[in-house]
Amino acid sequence: MFPYVSPPDESAKRDALARQDQLTKPSGALGRLEDLGVWVASCQGVCPPKPFTRPRVVIFAGDHGVAANGVSAYPSEVTAQMVANFLAGGAAVNVLAATAGATVRVVDMSVAGELSAPEQVTEFKVRQSSGSIDREDALTEDELKAAVEAGKTIADQEVDGGADVLIAGDMGIGNTTPAAVLVAALTGAEPVAVVGRGTGIDDRTWMRKTAAIRDALRRARQVSADPLALLRTSAGADIAAMAAFLAQAAVRKTPVILDGVVSTAAALVAEELAPGARLWWVAGHQSTEPSHKLALEQLGLEPMLDMKMRLGEGSGAVAALPLLAMATRVLAEMATFQDAGISGPE
Amino acid sequence: MFPYVSPPDESAKRDALARQDQLTKPSGALGRLEDLGVWVASCQGVCPPKPFTRPRVVIFAGDHGVAANGVSAYPSEVTAQMVANFLAGGAAVNVLAATAGATVRVVDMSVAGELSAPEQVTEFKVRQSSGSIDREDALTEDELKAAVEAGKTIADQEVDGGADVLIAGDMGIGNTTPAAVLVAALTGAEPVAVVGRGTGIDDRTWMRKTAAIRDALRRARQVSADPLALLRTSAGADIAAMAAFLAQAAVRKTPVILDGVVSTAAALVAEELAPGARLWWVAGHQSTEPSHKLALEQLGLEPMLDMKMRLGEGSGAVAALPLLAMATRVLAEMATFQDAGISGPE
Repeated sequence: MFPYVSPPDESAKRDALARQDQLTKPSGALGRLEDLGVWVASCQGVCPPKPFTRPRVVIFAGDHGVAANGVSAYPSEVTAQMVANFLAGGAAVNVLAATAGATVRVVDMSVAGELSAPEQVTEFKVRQSSGSIDREDALTEDELKAAVEAGKTIADQEVDGGADVLIAGDMGIGNTTPAAVLVAALTGAEPVAVVGRGTGIDDRTWMRKTAAIRDALRRARQVSADPLALLRTSAGADIAAMAAFLAQAAVRKTPVILDGVVSTAAALVAEELAPGARLWWVAGHQSTEPSHKLALEQLGLEPMLDMKMRLGEGSGAVAALPLLAMATRVLAEMATFQDAGISGPE
Repeated sequence: MFPYVSPPDESAKRDALARQDQLTKPSGALGRLEDLGVWVASCQGVCPPKPFTRPRVVIFAGDHGVAANGVSAYPSEVTAQMVANFLAGGAAVNVLAATAGATVRVVDMSVAGELSAPEQVTEFKVRQSSGSIDREDALTEDELKAAVEAGKTIADQEVDGGADVLIAGDMGIGNTTPAAVLVAALTGAEPVAVVGRGTGIDDRTWMRKTAAIRDALRRARQVSADPLALLRTSAGADIAAMAAFLAQAAVRKTPVILDGVVSTAAALVAEELAPGARLWWVAGHQSTEPSHKLALEQLGLEPMLDMKMRLGEGSGAVAALPLLAMATRVLAEMATFQDAGISGPE
């Protein structure tokens, strides 16, 4: 399904590490910014790296049948309303992206109802909502195939359109429930270890969510060795497309900033679909969702930010984008000791 | 010396807290970004707050007599060379500031030697270097007075020039030694608890630095109840000017992002000079210098970033600036539930 994922370029990495020591600062004094700059250079295969010119956020919107169990603080109609809000530029991710110099694309993969949205928003729509994963499969085999193809195509479109760093955002009432199930299925965690407060649920809703995750996880564990079957059983068209998008971004050698629990759950599956894809990703932030931490640990990624965010939409990744842009420009634009005629250590 | 510092506006803070709950996101879902937006609104005294239009970094450059004890990895001549690098735009802070939309000003308070720099860089120069604080005062009474006046004047100039968020950066070989002494004097910490690796010193240099801090701290403790005497005894013209700058920024109701150990040591003294000033500051980052953590705790400030940075120049604060800008724009520009016609929690 996905071709071999090559790792980021080792030669550019070596050049970047050497260049960090020539720039007018004590070696290592920029800490993780230096590591991030080296990573961007290795992803681009060139040192110094090129500053980003087209950071791009793609939001995968979809509803979730399991929301009918009462696992969220918000009604499912909010998903469609938020798609309209993204298109109008009024959502958090729009404002964050405008500040960070990124543009935002929204795709309706499986929102409940028919949206009155432009063709380019709905052209990949696979179905409305998803099966209730606590008792049935999220998708049919054909729906899964369509969702995965959509994710691949969208990644190809963005890379072909010049995107030089990608962020996958999520929007969907109830979507932290399938995300938690995927994380538990792929890390071996127990339901109570992965259930979080999502949009801000009360204790009664938390109990319903935990029960739904427990039931869904029984179904997920039976197929957890097969990433496509796992997406079909326990994800939904939005998360399946996002997993394929993340895998294909790696195939296309394009760096990605992961967001919160939904994008990181999709990333866990993407790493199964396309082993090595994780080398093309950094973790934008640590959210307050407990399963997010488990997923990042499994991927071996250390979050850039810890701002107690839990919104989704790609917001935590977009918040981290300026740091990655800075890391890249430092390596590209700072003077060297030699250029600036500055003395080295004694 | 400094007039009463009023706290940020409570009424704007209440309005901002209420507005956060009306924006199209679950309440609290943007975590610390929401707190930061509320803080900016309270500093500006208006909600929604105005996006920053003139973030400004002022770098206070100075040499330190104690560097002759061999407490740094770099020779003192690097201070003047780096001032030239800032003016040429080749230093880390220049690149970070360009990415974050800030401009950089450099003032030579006490660099060793005569710089061939423009008048506006050297006009506040108090002296060359400072007394070796392990055995003599850093400054005379007149020098201290001139440095403090300079810091106040520079803050006034920047606020009058339209700066709407300020960052104080440092440049000076050996300057983490006086910074550590100030932190130890004002927090009661022992020398070994405050001595850090600075620009990256080896074990032998670390021992010399620890001895210098121990000797300097004996002198500092005798005057630690008097902030001006403490600056005269143990700081230097650069840090004294920075402390006055931070105090005056608060007097002028202008928010500040603190950087690493040198700016935070100056901030500790500034809070003594102008009690309540700390309410006008946020901590941009946690550096790897051990005394930085102690100083932030004493000020009650939680760092925004932890990127293992230890460069100074204002770099960690500038790295955090985009987050503060995002927090401000979120509160100013996001749609409300009512505007966007979005359903609230069930």
